[in-house]
Amino acid sequence: MLRINACLGIQGATYNERYVPGGYFDKIEFERLLEIVSEIDDVTGYFVYYPGHPLIDNPEKLKRKLADYNSKVSDIGAETWADRKWKYGTLTAKDKNIRKEAIKIIKNTMDLAVELDAHSVLVWPAHDGMDYAFQADFSGAWDYLIESLEEIGEYNSEVKVAVEYKQKDPRAKSYIEDMAKLMLIIKSLNVDNIGAALDLGHSFFAAERPAESLALLDRNNKLYQIHLNDNYRDADPDLLFGTINFWDILEFFYWLGKIDYTGWMHTDFTSPRDDRIKMFKLAIKFIRDFEKMAEKLNKHSDIIDKNLKNHNFVDNMTLIRELLFK
Amino acid sequence: MLRINACLGIQGATYNERYVPGGYFDKIEFERLLEIVSEIDDVTGYFVYYPGHPLIDNPEKLKRKLADYNSKVSDIGAETWADRKWKYGTLTAKDKNIRKEAIKIIKNTMDLAVELDAHSVLVWPAHDGMDYAFQADFSGAWDYLIESLEEIGEYNSEVKVAVEYKQKDPRAKSYIEDMAKLMLIIKSLNVDNIGAALDLGHSFFAAERPAESLALLDRNNKLYQIHLNDNYRDADPDLLFGTINFWDILEFFYWLGKIDYTGWMHTDFTSPRDDRIKMFKLAIKFIRDFEKMAEKLNKHSDIIDKNLKNHNFVDNMTLIRELLFK
Amino acid sequence: MLRINACLGIQGATYNERYVPGGYFDKIEFERLLEIVSEIDDVTGYFVYYPGHPLIDNPEKLKRKLADYNSKVSDIGAETWADRKWKYGTLTAKDKNIRKEAIKIIKNTMDLAVELDAHSVLVWPAHDGMDYAFQADFSGAWDYLIESLEEIGEYNSEVKVAVEYKQKDPRAKSYIEDMAKLMLIIKSLNVDNIGAALDLGHSFFAAERPAESLALLDRNNKLYQIHLNDNYRDADPDLLFGTINFWDILEFFYWLGKIDYTGWMHTDFTSPRDDRIKMFKLAIKFIRDFEKMAEKLNKHSDIIDKNLKNHNFVDNMTLIRELLFK
Amino acid sequence: MLRINACLGIQGATYNERYVPGGYFDKIEFERLLEIVSEIDDVTGYFVYYPGHPLIDNPEKLKRKLADYNSKVSDIGAETWADRKWKYGTLTAKDKNIRKEAIKIIKNTMDLAVELDAHSVLVWPAHDGMDYAFQADFSGAWDYLIESLEEIGEYNSEVKVAVEYKQKDPRAKSYIEDMAKLMLIIKSLNVDNIGAALDLGHSFFAAERPAESLALLDRNNKLYQIHLNDNYRDADPDLLFGTINFWDILEFFYWLGKIDYTGWMHTDFTSPRDDRIKMFKLAIKFIRDFEKMAEKLNKHSDIIDKNLKNHNFVDNMTLIRELLFK
Repeated sequence: MLRINACLGIQGATYNERYVPGGYFDKIEFERLLEIVSEIDDVTGYFVYYPGHPLIDNPEKLKRKLADYNSKVSDIGAETWADRKWKYGTLTAKDKNIRKEAIKIIKNTMDLAVELDAHSVLVWPAHDGMDYAFQADFSGAWDYLIESLEEIGEYNSEVKVAVEYKQKDPRAKSYIEDMAKLMLIIKSLNVDNIGAALDLGHSFFAAERPAESLALLDRNNKLYQIHLNDNYRDADPDLLFGTINFWDILEFFYWLGKIDYTGWMHTDFTSPRDDRIKMFKLAIKFIRDFEKMAEKLNKHSDIIDKNLKNHNFVDNMTLIRELLFK
Repeated sequence: MLRINACLGIQGATYNERYVPGGYFDKIEFERLLEIVSEIDDVTGYFVYYPGHPLIDNPEKLKRKLADYNSKVSDIGAETWADRKWKYGTLTAKDKNIRKEAIKIIKNTMDLAVELDAHSVLVWPAHDGMDYAFQADFSGAWDYLIESLEEIGEYNSEVKVAVEYKQKDPRAKSYIEDMAKLMLIIKSLNVDNIGAALDLGHSFFAAERPAESLALLDRNNKLYQIHLNDNYRDADPDLLFGTINFWDILEFFYWLGKIDYTGWMHTDFTSPRDDRIKMFKLAIKFIRDFEKMAEKLNKHSDIIDKNLKNHNFVDNMTLIRELLFK
Repeated sequence: MLRINACLGIQGATYNERYVPGGYFDKIEFERLLEIVSEIDDVTGYFVYYPGHPLIDNPEKLKRKLADYNSKVSDIGAETWADRKWKYGTLTAKDKNIRKEAIKIIKNTMDLAVELDAHSVLVWPAHDGMDYAFQADFSGAWDYLIESLEEIGEYNSEVKVAVEYKQKDPRAKSYIEDMAKLMLIIKSLNVDNIGAALDLGHSFFAAERPAESLALLDRNNKLYQIHLNDNYRDADPDLLFGTINFWDILEFFYWLGKIDYTGWMHTDFTSPRDDRIKMFKLAIKFIRDFEKMAEKLNKHSDIIDKNLKNHNFVDNMTLIRELLFK
Repeated sequence: MLRINACLGIQGATYNERYVPGGYFDKIEFERLLEIVSEIDDVTGYFVYYPGHPLIDNPEKLKRKLADYNSKVSDIGAETWADRKWKYGTLTAKDKNIRKEAIKIIKNTMDLAVELDAHSVLVWPAHDGMDYAFQADFSGAWDYLIESLEEIGEYNSEVKVAVEYKQKDPRAKSYIEDMAKLMLIIKSLNVDNIGAALDLGHSFFAAERPAESLALLDRNNKLYQIHLNDNYRDADPDLLFGTINFWDILEFFYWLGKIDYTGWMHTDFTSPRDDRIKMFKLAIKFIRDFEKMAEKLNKHSDIIDKNLKNHNFVDNMTLIRELLFK
């Protein structure tokens, strides 16, 4: 069964956005979230972040606190976007001190990952990109990107570092916009522990088929994290997982069932207008629904895969429809 | 010459967004902005808002303050989105008290428009829309929309109320998503003073040709405001006017030159990473550039319009290229 | 039960497209298609077209031929796009003779609709639009559009004329791009028999929620035809109905269950790479699947609608998930 | 000065598309096109294709014919899409005979490139992709892709083979959808003569910044062809170069001015509604316009590049505006 986590910064957050700067919710305190989540089946880990997460400066205490609730750290994110100082980017910023500062945060996060026994570290270069023509030095940015990622990878080759790609937002275009660009960068590195976070919503946003991105990342042993949410492929509001792209998600879970993914399913969605905890519970139900439907299909993978190989869509979908809806 | 305004909430704002909740800038105080802008040629008005704008509760004092800087109020916006209480919408909210409260703010803004001699009032129903299947009562929302807008229009038939359409954001889809939907609503009203704010970026975002939207709004005498910014048609980050959609903007200004627009050019863009005042000055230069280029074309409108009528694009563009680039 | 039709021009067509001008299939002859389809349950009508459809110049014979196969004409389309003479448009073409010719074809089609007892006539102004800045006379086009549609409506007020909107393709932007624009035009007409064809794929393509478009068209008694296919909202390749936008389609069928739609479900998809007849059968199964799932939900419409009215998405989706997947 | 070519398959073609299967034009015969183009300054080469191009089976005669008009072959395309037999793809087709046949055509084209002294060979795997969930074997397709491209590259390491990437169309998603995916594939090959055709419209369609794609391809010495056309980033109708994305194109030409591009500018646009030859002439004027504007900027590349490096957009655009519009 897939392992699912919760996250204070998501399920407990106020969700301040541009048009509602005060946020849609009051914050849920960490202890309170632990209590709430402990009553939900199927959630066995926490995605934490550095800096800023409660108890993050005392990893032992954080571990014990989580253990009190029969939980543990799943993965840990390096937060390098919420301060305006990152506005020109992190890994690609011209200012050497800014790059250094960002890399230092990531290294600290890697240390914490070891102490917390986290599966992997998340790096999202949110501001590394451009908005306008004549704003970016594409070639220089590439150099910085390689240099920064190699320094990160070399710091501790035992720690998996998952880079999160995203087409755009907050920049009109990111440097690392899709799976292929990220893999191209990874192939250019002289380190082996830089991989990918496949955020389902970002994959849709980048006009990918998530199952293809999963398959190609897995071929290269670079699939370190999966983030679950949904969208209409035109923006990334982190909508509730499972509510929009039914078939693509099913295909994604089908391929997931074919590989040996040892990471977590990160419940990475926002819920500005609905009860957050109810939404979280519904998300988990949907994860299990897709897992079960995919299992049903995986039992027939000999036929389904043969149809895939033979470009035989109509027989495949006829079969799948019968397996699911009859 | 087109009249251009400034706006504290835009040029002076911190620009807090989802990923940088503390904002990219320190706030500029109103008095300071007045000083700065007074040194810029071509800016002769201020777009103010209610509630929350400095001195807005003392309209006479606000007028005098602006007069001290040889300026005046251009238009006034009713702010009904920044508080989480609006999360289910304003004009279409099920909760009668919420609708009443939003309408009350708009009526107060209309009163202020009279006192401040503003050209028009802006209404943006930001949260009126939906994110998911099975979230919206489309038919009920339409009823509320008509009822609310009629109450607003009837309140003072002398005040122009400009409704701002937007495809999406903060909702995955707005009820009033484009020019056509807004005009359809307007046609369904029994009042005559509800019109449109044509935000150039929103027009691109809605996959419109802005010149067409302008032409059709003008046919119906419903073009009350023009907001200037730019984008890549895939999001609405309010980028600097003039930096992306050159030809569409030129066409827009060409058609603007053919009608009798008496409103203002609202400089409605954000600038999270560049010097805000430099960006504002550059925006004004671009406005004048497009105005001048359009004037050049308008002098040949007999030929250009004949080509338009005759579906003769190649001769038109050949001529226009020569007028502009030779 | 929803009435489903077949169409020679779709199920029997070679599907010539830009990159495969010779088409992906050999043509199926009409008689042969009749035989094939007669063996498929649930298909009780034919969408025919004028000019060009077999036997269309002999309506009595066409009726008898269809009757031989226990079928009848559902709707009839006026074909005004396949010849290059329409390249500057039909209803909005500057050339009066072109407009006249197109309108004549539509009038003939209306006559045929009477003779064939068709539910409605389809009009798709495919080439009426623009590709470039400085190519279109927006205001003049509007005048021609109104004038042409009124002439069509007046010709026989007993015949329903369904206009098909489409965002773009073959033009970069159509004049009648979405439901709102079409309804705005309809509201401007002095005739009452011009309505809409809601093509599901065109609705997605126009960034609509199809259920909203259905609800608003139905409010105005202007929903004359429904065309079923699917896409990724970014193009209109007329993919197999039901294979992409699961939830939006379910919502659409839920709202369809609330209204009194007396028209047909037009199976309007292409199948360049799969067996066409198998695909057609699968499409029909999906139509029935969605019909049944929607019926399940409609039985709980008291709760679902109350949740819709109360902006209560999470309870709605929790209930719907249980109804469908448990 | 950039070298510009013409192409019978483009400037002389009938342009049959889905909705106008008979095409918008009568064909221009090759000899006639040669005459017409010979009167246009600045066009010094022809993009030819195999199979199907006049005289292509007699390379010597073709060369002499072109020489008669003071022209030569620029590049040569391998046509592997127009027949329905390619509907399941070419380089990734499951059927070994299909792959073999496609590769044979490409090898023949490579031979012709040598005989005709063409700069490079174009390969566009148009049908290699997918439309639906559960239609594609992503992992198997990758294997075939690598295997096929290596066989092609090994056939003659002296011939540059430019692979053309495209987001979608005719498939809902291509395997080789953008620059990054293509470079990732190229990096996985054991041959060195497979590179890229950067089609400006495909780059916009893939949500790229063309200047970034150019810069990254050039870093890897893989920029073999440039195709010029324009679009609204939402489809690829091959609109007239220069008429839409002014600033992005200018940035592209600025970066082009910084590298040592030895290939051709391929005038790859369609013109279904305007006089083709007039459009062609206008396209050439726009190419020269952008070339000249970029030259103006390149003279100030010390300042502009410094601004790029320093993330200083506002000073850059202020300078560029002055250089262009003052």
